[in-house]
Amino acid sequence: MAEESSNWIVMVTAKSPTNIAVIKYWGKRDETLILPINDSISVTLDPDHLCTTTTVAVSPAFQSDRMWLNGKEISLSGHRYQNCLREIRQRASEYEDEKRGIRISKEDWGKLHVHIASYNNFPTAAGLASSAAGFACLVFALGKLMQVKEDLGALSAIARQGSGSACRSLYGGFVKWVMGNDVTGKDSIAVQLASEKHWDDLVIIIAVVSSRQKETSSTTGMRESVETSTLLHHRSKEVVPKRIVQMEEAIANRDFASFSKLTCTDSNQFHAVCLDTCPPIFYMNDTSHKIISYVEKWNQYEGTAQVAYTFDAGPNAVLIARDRKTAGHLLQRLLFYFPPNVDLSSYVLGDKSILQEAGVESLKDIEGLPSPPEVKDNVAPKRYPGDVSYFICTRPGRGPVVLTGEDQALLDPKTGLPK
Amino acid sequence: MAEESSNWIVMVTAKSPTNIAVIKYWGKRDETLILPINDSISVTLDPDHLCTTTTVAVSPAFQSDRMWLNGKEISLSGHRYQNCLREIRQRASEYEDEKRGIRISKEDWGKLHVHIASYNNFPTAAGLASSAAGFACLVFALGKLMQVKEDLGALSAIARQGSGSACRSLYGGFVKWVMGNDVTGKDSIAVQLASEKHWDDLVIIIAVVSSRQKETSSTTGMRESVETSTLLHHRSKEVVPKRIVQMEEAIANRDFASFSKLTCTDSNQFHAVCLDTCPPIFYMNDTSHKIISYVEKWNQYEGTAQVAYTFDAGPNAVLIARDRKTAGHLLQRLLFYFPPNVDLSSYVLGDKSILQEAGVESLKDIEGLPSPPEVKDNVAPKRYPGDVSYFICTRPGRGPVVLTGEDQALLDPKTGLPK
Repeated sequence: MAEESSNWIVMVTAKSPTNIAVIKYWGKRDETLILPINDSISVTLDPDHLCTTTTVAVSPAFQSDRMWLNGKEISLSGHRYQNCLREIRQRASEYEDEKRGIRISKEDWGKLHVHIASYNNFPTAAGLASSAAGFACLVFALGKLMQVKEDLGALSAIARQGSGSACRSLYGGFVKWVMGNDVTGKDSIAVQLASEKHWDDLVIIIAVVSSRQKETSSTTGMRESVETSTLLHHRSKEVVPKRIVQMEEAIANRDFASFSKLTCTDSNQFHAVCLDTCPPIFYMNDTSHKIISYVEKWNQYEGTAQVAYTFDAGPNAVLIARDRKTAGHLLQRLLFYFPPNVDLSSYVLGDKSILQEAGVESLKDIEGLPSPPEVKDNVAPKRYPGDVSYFICTRPGRGPVVLTGEDQALLDPKTGLPK
Repeated sequence: MAEESSNWIVMVTAKSPTNIAVIKYWGKRDETLILPINDSISVTLDPDHLCTTTTVAVSPAFQSDRMWLNGKEISLSGHRYQNCLREIRQRASEYEDEKRGIRISKEDWGKLHVHIASYNNFPTAAGLASSAAGFACLVFALGKLMQVKEDLGALSAIARQGSGSACRSLYGGFVKWVMGNDVTGKDSIAVQLASEKHWDDLVIIIAVVSSRQKETSSTTGMRESVETSTLLHHRSKEVVPKRIVQMEEAIANRDFASFSKLTCTDSNQFHAVCLDTCPPIFYMNDTSHKIISYVEKWNQYEGTAQVAYTFDAGPNAVLIARDRKTAGHLLQRLLFYFPPNVDLSSYVLGDKSILQEAGVESLKDIEGLPSPPEVKDNVAPKRYPGDVSYFICTRPGRGPVVLTGEDQALLDPKTGLPK
């Protein structure tokens, strides 16, 4: 360890994306190791718009493992955090900084306490898979700090033990979480199917839907589905394996029609299984249903799929448009049906250039939007201000990266406490 | 036929109940004959509160088959009406009224035109299975008029060709529709499991839920589910057969806990299959979801099932309380969460005595209702005036009956036209 002084701090800062499943993960075969009952496939979202930044640090001066999430100290005692910390420490290897005269041996890592500060650039409670980005970032950053030599696949198996879907956030682009069959979970890892550059036409718009209902956590929900749904087993054994093959093919061929069909039907089937759970779980609400109906009607009107929709364990819609032009048309429709109650700049977030694509620069432009052509001429469609809190425009994005700028660190390099 | 004059009219008036499935029918194996892919079980609702009254008449003076529904003439050309008329005419037998000197031979029935007037004592469009009561009543009344000697089972197979669930309205109490396996459909008939007197504690409250969405018809919906849902086949082949056995047992033993569990889970599974359909079908809305949540929370709080819920192809909740006292407590809760926007007498319909059971006599009593005890003390629950249009209080009831009073006929005995 450090020879001359115990005041040194070594830290690493990393940034990780969130991801949205297009073939859903729902149901564990092992609750502790977080092993799923089927493969799943996701799209990684651009961390420029949705990401977690995490700084991890060690110092002989630290008295205990501590963590701050979005500036507030939280407990690390949960087994999910403990599992990730333990697994990374076991794989730590020697670190040496000759300039600063710091040497940390393989064994030292187990004795040094860590400080962790984590920050989401999007609302944690909005149901946007913050735990996926969070655990991916934690494991990635700790792995860099502690000189873990294992590849991203092995890291993904550790992140999985923090939050199942976190394993898919270790890669950018299009990612498969292979369920594996080993009891240790070592083969239940993420693999990249294609990078984000493979299919860079896609544009993603997330509708954060206002909700008054308290939702069932996905951990509780999937446990109850496994215990009570008579349809889930059939889904995981008979339906999903075929869809995984078809989805891999659709992604490889950039076949939007198949991609869209599979994405929508698998989202709907996941919510069907939730409804088949006892007591039933409702994640989608009337606004979610409306968004599905608008997209289905539009796709049908065009004769080809323009937009795919998918919903996780909450009412928010994740809409994937085939290209930028289509995304503009989608945003027009969304702003038509769900006009803002607030100013435009806080209503459309992320890649605001899609607003220009949509020809919308002001609230007045939104008032002037015509009915979409798929609406029958004789019906003036109802509009629902207030049903959507805001939209985030984004795209498929890259995996975790280390941030080297000192100003990007969330912990003070002198005190090891949040800045 | 009539010897002396062609001005005579022979008519019969009957009254038929509607029914609510507790193990659901969803999916046909034959669209024309209306043959289902699984057995179903229903409870017949008391015709005092929900029924169809139908008068059928023949006369040599009638120029064509005609029908009036709720006072408005409608076309009989659809194959559903044509199938029922044809099947009944094929089974007609000789009629003789010596007093009036009228004789109608087996062959005459095929030449005589019918007039039909039908009236629902509840809103047709409210999604309360009006077609079940309607076709059951039509077939029952025509059978009486045309001296059909077949039993109710054979009549149920004819009503089935008008509307699948109509076959279950030929009996009172608890009824099973046996799917059968003959290609002609002759063994796809209703059988009575138990009369309404077998289990007369049950009280049923229907919440007619306000809806702004146009719904998919059940005919279209089930066709699309059969074509696209990957879960429906598993449901009909693997899940329903077991539930049918269990439900028959629960009814035989008046075992409310099992009855309730099966009723709720089967309703939820039917809606799960609708969601698994492409494009997805949403029959329940946020109000339906709220009602389910309130009932689940209450049942859980009590530790034993108080109330079962089931939803057909629409947002209306059919709530089955274990007894009158529980029904009073249920109505208190319903009026607490969904206070009326209108006067009480048009908000709680049917068996209004349940209001007394609930201790509610005025709108003031509703304002004064306390939070249900299952609600946590520190949370003031939200109330939703306007989300429910009205409630109907009823119970399991009898099958179709002939009405003999001349004032009960819907057709004028002299003109054969609606009164």
